[in-house]
Amino acid sequence: MFNTLGNLLSLTTFGESHGVAYGGIINNFPAGLTVDFDKIQYELDRRKPGQSAIVTQRKESDTVKFLSGIFEGKTTGTPIGFIIENENQKSKDYDHIADSYRPSHADFTYDQKFGIRDYRGGGKSSARETINWVVAGALAKQLLSGIEINAYVSSVGDIFCEKPYQDLDFSKTESNAVRCPDAETAEKMIERIKEIKKEGNTIGGTVTCVIKNVPVGIGEPIFSKLQAELGKAMLNINACKGFEYGSGFCGAKMTGKEHNDAFNTDFTTQSNLSGGIQGGISNGMDIYFRAAFKPVATILRPQESVDRYGNPVIVEGKGRHDPCVVPRAVPVVESLAAFVLADLFLINKTRNINNF
Amino acid sequence: MFNTLGNLLSLTTFGESHGVAYGGIINNFPAGLTVDFDKIQYELDRRKPGQSAIVTQRKESDTVKFLSGIFEGKTTGTPIGFIIENENQKSKDYDHIADSYRPSHADFTYDQKFGIRDYRGGGKSSARETINWVVAGALAKQLLSGIEINAYVSSVGDIFCEKPYQDLDFSKTESNAVRCPDAETAEKMIERIKEIKKEGNTIGGTVTCVIKNVPVGIGEPIFSKLQAELGKAMLNINACKGFEYGSGFCGAKMTGKEHNDAFNTDFTTQSNLSGGIQGGISNGMDIYFRAAFKPVATILRPQESVDRYGNPVIVEGKGRHDPCVVPRAVPVVESLAAFVLADLFLINKTRNINNF
Amino acid sequence: MFNTLGNLLSLTTFGESHGVAYGGIINNFPAGLTVDFDKIQYELDRRKPGQSAIVTQRKESDTVKFLSGIFEGKTTGTPIGFIIENENQKSKDYDHIADSYRPSHADFTYDQKFGIRDYRGGGKSSARETINWVVAGALAKQLLSGIEINAYVSSVGDIFCEKPYQDLDFSKTESNAVRCPDAETAEKMIERIKEIKKEGNTIGGTVTCVIKNVPVGIGEPIFSKLQAELGKAMLNINACKGFEYGSGFCGAKMTGKEHNDAFNTDFTTQSNLSGGIQGGISNGMDIYFRAAFKPVATILRPQESVDRYGNPVIVEGKGRHDPCVVPRAVPVVESLAAFVLADLFLINKTRNINNF
Amino acid sequence: MFNTLGNLLSLTTFGESHGVAYGGIINNFPAGLTVDFDKIQYELDRRKPGQSAIVTQRKESDTVKFLSGIFEGKTTGTPIGFIIENENQKSKDYDHIADSYRPSHADFTYDQKFGIRDYRGGGKSSARETINWVVAGALAKQLLSGIEINAYVSSVGDIFCEKPYQDLDFSKTESNAVRCPDAETAEKMIERIKEIKKEGNTIGGTVTCVIKNVPVGIGEPIFSKLQAELGKAMLNINACKGFEYGSGFCGAKMTGKEHNDAFNTDFTTQSNLSGGIQGGISNGMDIYFRAAFKPVATILRPQESVDRYGNPVIVEGKGRHDPCVVPRAVPVVESLAAFVLADLFLINKTRNINNF
Repeated sequence: MFNTLGNLLSLTTFGESHGVAYGGIINNFPAGLTVDFDKIQYELDRRKPGQSAIVTQRKESDTVKFLSGIFEGKTTGTPIGFIIENENQKSKDYDHIADSYRPSHADFTYDQKFGIRDYRGGGKSSARETINWVVAGALAKQLLSGIEINAYVSSVGDIFCEKPYQDLDFSKTESNAVRCPDAETAEKMIERIKEIKKEGNTIGGTVTCVIKNVPVGIGEPIFSKLQAELGKAMLNINACKGFEYGSGFCGAKMTGKEHNDAFNTDFTTQSNLSGGIQGGISNGMDIYFRAAFKPVATILRPQESVDRYGNPVIVEGKGRHDPCVVPRAVPVVESLAAFVLADLFLINKTRNINNF
Repeated sequence: MFNTLGNLLSLTTFGESHGVAYGGIINNFPAGLTVDFDKIQYELDRRKPGQSAIVTQRKESDTVKFLSGIFEGKTTGTPIGFIIENENQKSKDYDHIADSYRPSHADFTYDQKFGIRDYRGGGKSSARETINWVVAGALAKQLLSGIEINAYVSSVGDIFCEKPYQDLDFSKTESNAVRCPDAETAEKMIERIKEIKKEGNTIGGTVTCVIKNVPVGIGEPIFSKLQAELGKAMLNINACKGFEYGSGFCGAKMTGKEHNDAFNTDFTTQSNLSGGIQGGISNGMDIYFRAAFKPVATILRPQESVDRYGNPVIVEGKGRHDPCVVPRAVPVVESLAAFVLADLFLINKTRNINNF
Repeated sequence: MFNTLGNLLSLTTFGESHGVAYGGIINNFPAGLTVDFDKIQYELDRRKPGQSAIVTQRKESDTVKFLSGIFEGKTTGTPIGFIIENENQKSKDYDHIADSYRPSHADFTYDQKFGIRDYRGGGKSSARETINWVVAGALAKQLLSGIEINAYVSSVGDIFCEKPYQDLDFSKTESNAVRCPDAETAEKMIERIKEIKKEGNTIGGTVTCVIKNVPVGIGEPIFSKLQAELGKAMLNINACKGFEYGSGFCGAKMTGKEHNDAFNTDFTTQSNLSGGIQGGISNGMDIYFRAAFKPVATILRPQESVDRYGNPVIVEGKGRHDPCVVPRAVPVVESLAAFVLADLFLINKTRNINNF
Repeated sequence: MFNTLGNLLSLTTFGESHGVAYGGIINNFPAGLTVDFDKIQYELDRRKPGQSAIVTQRKESDTVKFLSGIFEGKTTGTPIGFIIENENQKSKDYDHIADSYRPSHADFTYDQKFGIRDYRGGGKSSARETINWVVAGALAKQLLSGIEINAYVSSVGDIFCEKPYQDLDFSKTESNAVRCPDAETAEKMIERIKEIKKEGNTIGGTVTCVIKNVPVGIGEPIFSKLQAELGKAMLNINACKGFEYGSGFCGAKMTGKEHNDAFNTDFTTQSNLSGGIQGGISNGMDIYFRAAFKPVATILRPQESVDRYGNPVIVEGKGRHDPCVVPRAVPVVESLAAFVLADLFLINKTRNINNF
């Protein structure tokens, strides 16, 4: 179904930046999981604004309230409804843009498509929607016990984390504001973001995600290949402009002889340019992918634009915005990856008569 | 629904490389379209093997037979069933790999997931599946009258078509074997593929797709953003390792000031780093994206591998295989893009009460 | 998608009888409808307990709170989230059945399927879930301007409203407690329910629904016939045991000569045993159907039963329960009918190229 | 997805009465089932026309050809494509109705909805579509090993099989032309159909279906209750006007005291008015339901009608038609029941963390 995440395990969401609340319904979550609520709040806190000097200074408590589907601490198999109430909205910050179309925002396209839009804080097009995904992903992570999902910032502007992921210690990801596990690179990234912020500008970056311990067999052969479902989820994140897995765009420059992953006799492979997926199905090796994020469109400088009548206007970002979105995208990427995996994991339970 | 392409307009397919036939059902195609069957065959011929010296020399007639849903040359609104019969199969070419797992193929993962696989010619994992998509896409193209969808080969190995798409003449795409509209680059690419082929090796590449004249408003706000649906479709193509649209991965290196697309007073934009999509919805500018393809895994040289029992074996590609998949991927990319657009185009008919 | 109502226009819901709140998300509701909130509350009030002497005496305010998707009184085309907070729960009334399986309730099946259940007030299996459907249906009704949907109680036990629907004045439906527009029959029904209530017993009944002014063409030919979608929706109502439309089970006794609906030259038909639907598609005549409801399983008398360990126990309904569910089912039936129609109505916008 | 049967296990179909072929794709059928092709042909033969004096005398071989998804006699988990070629079409029999609208057929509604229709033999609205369902159902039956699904004709016109199903020997169902396991009643039914046929008339009837050995837990709690999915499937059968399960419409006349099914200490129930389903979920008791079928609309007598321009015309059924559809509906009802069960059975594999 369109406008829903997942196929069997599904997430439907609602909410606008300056509406009453965000929230969602997780449908078909299996019964019997003992929910660790602290872990959910931990993920929400990772995504939360105001955590450091290099992200937006908005203060939001971002507390989720579960309304159903959990009884005496356990999932019951019935729909899990949840809300996150909005607070600290400064709707008046947006009155000046009610009729203006900000460059590279969704103002114009929403207005044209729907004939109406909630313009406050971007309304439905606000990235605050991702808060719903983090709730669902945090639950999905608990379902996938034993599977490790680690995302990190692999570039900010032209500063890249050059080390291969195998050489990184993911326990360090949370130890700095930019969420790059390599301390030296992290420092440079933070420096760069601070400069950009000072200019009232913004900057793009990439997030890499590594998933370990996925069993063989996850993913569907034709139109729901594992990489396709992961890619679709990532490309739904606001500002995401690209997705690659395994060798990715670099693989397009290689020859077959270089690119093929030779098998070991235990069915692991000597290289892993396939990125843990062959024919759309996990092969037991590490899954890794990278998502590209454009710079945030709201810059704190005057820009020439137009209003809905085609008149020239000057728009200028006010309020509190992220100079670089990737540090806060890290938990969002992990959450979507977890949800997609859990969905395909459940589907896989039904694909072989030997499970019966 | 998983294992189906599209949400409202949908394609379900079947077929294995050496089975009886490929085919599919296009559901919910609108009634009343006068079908141009020659155009469908034209697209199938573009995808067909054996067209030039740089693609596989298999000979297949690849003729589609419509079984329902079209009456007196017009679509009736009821399911369109079609088949493409297989022929010229050399199944015996594959007996030697019945128990072997070829590197970077789906042999191992299919066997593990399903406990059984049709090993002949890759069975279900064969890229011959894309023939179904071309049929569906050729019909979708006819629905999207006025919309121009042009894909072309933008790189082979490290040979890139450096010209921006705006400087290319798409009427030249079919004038050379590699499907790059820039004659000079095309020549280099062909040369490179010939060398690679001589070595029994293969090489990767990228396909760029440009879509013009899409009306404003196509795409859904949250989980079915236009780029997400396009990306998902492309990532389902065999060998596709990455997808980017608009500024893509390059955009991740830029600042907001550089990246923002300023509006003109007619609501076109001065630059188009957004790639024709804002907030997941088309904005009327050109949509463009790029897909990366790894080198074909079947190389005509001996490779060390394992069989299903973990014993070391030597596998060697026999038969007729593509040294480079991207020229034949061009019509496949266009077909999927057309189908995704048509689906979202139909959905958009239902999203505003003013249409009623 | 399973556990969701509707195909294109969709409703996903959550909530348990004694949980925090009920609620739902209406996805893909068209933009631009000016919402009449009073009409929504009116429908909720019709469904509400405590309205008369013959329904449950629970007092609930049953007020819906919209959380998103409506801006300045108009739908925005984005997901409509809503909640109805629970109140006045007497959870302790249910402690005694935590381990008991009440006859003809869902206690046993939920426990077996999920290994856990919220036993308070029936938890997820409570008919309070229908409150969500009334919210969604009240919105759908507003979308279907000009279409009249009137349900009424057509039988209670063996007391039947013998008049054909054409002879009834639907403006009288709300004028009595049992919601039968024929005053004389209504009185008998009310009398019967009062007797039954006095005995601590319950009684079944049927609801008939008549839909006027549906345009020709609504419904899909094969697996989403209009009657199939209506029937599925009704059979999801708690206690519903049967569905028939047009001539229904009586039609199975007739001959073709008797049953065929002869056409007039304006394409109306002289009889309407088809019930306004031919080949799964509306033909412009009145649509009418009937749903059967079993007696409520909770009776205020001791019954022999078993607990989860198979031990014999005595269960006795306490609390406040409906002696007869059909009067309160009337707005539920209308709501589901409206939602199903609106969904198929939107789908129909996409089925003919002439709409483009 | 609309126009598809099933949620996880799904069937998409195509075909028109006088088109090239019928066929379908069964998606997500589990891998590893050894297919008994004779059993599939057996079910097709049961549905086939020309089996006896009381059904249509058309001769069709009705042989299914599997095109994919089965390898060396076993399902591979990939899509199962199949076709049944049409033959023995007498399309010219229908030229006279190209512009006429037959009473109580779908001619008018298809024309209005789609603006075009294949009028030959009813085109898409022909009940020959059910042949696809029998193929899928015959495969689903093999998946449900141990579960017994037995349908039979329970009434023809006003001749009812008065015995409760418990007193019938289902091994006798196939021993007479009308498929009623009670020989005496069968004889009366056959007599009645012969009379009706002689008059060029048709007659309705009902089919009862009994399903034994369904494990506890099949069915989903809210919008995919087991009875709702069964009812939807049955109401999609051409001519089906009603569905009831368990006590059905009779249950609506009863009191709670009479209707409640008391538990035994082994969790079976003493009565089974619930029809094997409580709260939408199977409880391990026999599931039974009844479907009503109107008389076939094609009668071999002149009828007044109109053409597409509103002119009065006389239509008269020619060709070979069923005087009573219920004997041939028996395998169709069983097939749909099997498919719906298999779908919900697979879904149930994913609903409890203890299965993991």
